[in-house]
Amino acid sequence: MKVNLMHGAGGEVMGELLRVITNLEHNNAGGIGLESLDDGAVIPLNGQNIVFTTDNHVVSPIFFPGGDIGRIAVCGTINDLAMMGGRPIALSCGMVIPEGFEVADLERIVASMDAALGECGANLVTGDTKVLERSALDTIVVNTAGIGVAERVVRDNGLSVGDKIIVSGTIGDHGIAIMAHREGFDFGGQIRSDVAPLWPLVEKALAAGDIHAMKDPTRGGFANAINEMARKSGVGIVIEEADLPFRASVRSAAGMLGLDPLEVANEGKVVMGVAPHDAETVLAALRSHPYGRDAAIVGEVVEGSHVVMRTAIGGERFIEPPVGDPVPRVC
Amino acid sequence: MKVNLMHGAGGEVMGELLRVITNLEHNNAGGIGLESLDDGAVIPLNGQNIVFTTDNHVVSPIFFPGGDIGRIAVCGTINDLAMMGGRPIALSCGMVIPEGFEVADLERIVASMDAALGECGANLVTGDTKVLERSALDTIVVNTAGIGVAERVVRDNGLSVGDKIIVSGTIGDHGIAIMAHREGFDFGGQIRSDVAPLWPLVEKALAAGDIHAMKDPTRGGFANAINEMARKSGVGIVIEEADLPFRASVRSAAGMLGLDPLEVANEGKVVMGVAPHDAETVLAALRSHPYGRDAAIVGEVVEGSHVVMRTAIGGERFIEPPVGDPVPRVC
Repeated sequence: MKVNLMHGAGGEVMGELLRVITNLEHNNAGGIGLESLDDGAVIPLNGQNIVFTTDNHVVSPIFFPGGDIGRIAVCGTINDLAMMGGRPIALSCGMVIPEGFEVADLERIVASMDAALGECGANLVTGDTKVLERSALDTIVVNTAGIGVAERVVRDNGLSVGDKIIVSGTIGDHGIAIMAHREGFDFGGQIRSDVAPLWPLVEKALAAGDIHAMKDPTRGGFANAINEMARKSGVGIVIEEADLPFRASVRSAAGMLGLDPLEVANEGKVVMGVAPHDAETVLAALRSHPYGRDAAIVGEVVEGSHVVMRTAIGGERFIEPPVGDPVPRVC
Repeated sequence: MKVNLMHGAGGEVMGELLRVITNLEHNNAGGIGLESLDDGAVIPLNGQNIVFTTDNHVVSPIFFPGGDIGRIAVCGTINDLAMMGGRPIALSCGMVIPEGFEVADLERIVASMDAALGECGANLVTGDTKVLERSALDTIVVNTAGIGVAERVVRDNGLSVGDKIIVSGTIGDHGIAIMAHREGFDFGGQIRSDVAPLWPLVEKALAAGDIHAMKDPTRGGFANAINEMARKSGVGIVIEEADLPFRASVRSAAGMLGLDPLEVANEGKVVMGVAPHDAETVLAALRSHPYGRDAAIVGEVVEGSHVVMRTAIGGERFIEPPVGDPVPRVC
């Protein structure tokens, strides 16, 4: 069997590949390990919960409306730490650069990483660089790994019946921005990636109430994240379509592109399951931060095993995890 | 200016690129950061020294005599942790896989990683996988990052005049094995990569005496490592050529390939500067471990700023850091 592009798409097919890649005996350092396929691992160390995570970034193009590969590389890892309840402390950066790459572009990427780090008090402390022949690689690959510390670890599998589902803002912005840019559509700068480091936002939310589960809806989008949370928690979820926040421009661009905004990546959003009595205070905390001003309660956890959406016109349909990813090289 | 292959070679030219890549304001989490360009970073956390490091691996071919890209990916990071005095605790793994890659090869790579982890009690706890079109990438890229804990941090810049220089075994095995294999030379299985996880060896050495500085001579080989240690420590070093351990087969293959074994990568060796009164006990500790049985005292730290080798025939020559790397894609 050979690896194909569907294996990297973050959808169901990817599970086959993950079973191969995660087939290690030495997969857990006494906390949460590779076997859990959560946003990161947890390592208990001297009475602290060290959160540890990594991401490769191959987004194309490397500069796009609202961000670039440097900002994504830093934010992707900071957000995975934040999803586990981890305050980001230190990041590593491994770059593989094709020969012929412009050093001026590298300078822009590094400056962008630095700015994103500054937004949440994290530091990039160690790195490695390899250069490959142009015939071997046509794009820069940026890996980041990150260390954080969690006072209280939050999982993606902690949903309870009755929890309110909150999203921290508009859905689909990143994936639609990338695709619209690739296709050369001009929306007058209205469609921009949402890529952002979420720790300051998540920190406010954690202080405001009892958050049972978090996940950032990156590859595979909201559809993938909400299904993974439901499946791992052993619950069903009902989503109210009318409550899902979308930018009008993103929705119309998605229509033109033939994409479902629920299935494309976000890079600056969090999906939460919150204890019902705390939902309004957590929502208010999110809305008090610029990255959470469009936050909304969009649904509720129920008994069952499916994610159902009550549509705006009064019907019901399942939200399924996407089989593949309609937007390759989105992050 | 554009990036070229020399920028990734681990020699002097790479410094230009590193000045761009490390130009961040947010580069240190209160300990040893990116600015030091050591084998890893140190983050003081709750009274502990957390060591953190990362490496990208693009070795070609991915399977070679003595190892494979999986073993290198785990050992490279474990060894960088060990060089800082860090016991390896947890690793991350980010893979970028070209479509068409054989899943059976991936299984071999993962099994090899697992075995290397098992040799030193570390665990691979978190990961990420991307799949790229074959037109974008012709090889698997494996990034590993790692977390360790150091009771006492060891730097690469701690050499003092009078220190003995110890290498833990034969020099040049990995680079020459890769090149001989690529060129199709058959040495009857005598030339094999030395790739190995060094923490158990380093742990013995640390317990045996006062080690002032450590570095693993990977890209750029012994010549690069010893010069970097001397330059950062502000000292000179005299090396006795007659005391440098080489496999005869490696030396003759290096001659046939036109390579200097001092300038090619090792993946299972450490270069140490040891307080003179402890040199013999540290040497004995190294030799008591299979990965250190060919350890030798090869030189001494002196006043000055050059690395000089007293040749076997009674002359002297400088050992210079290689300008580029004679062996591309060696790790």
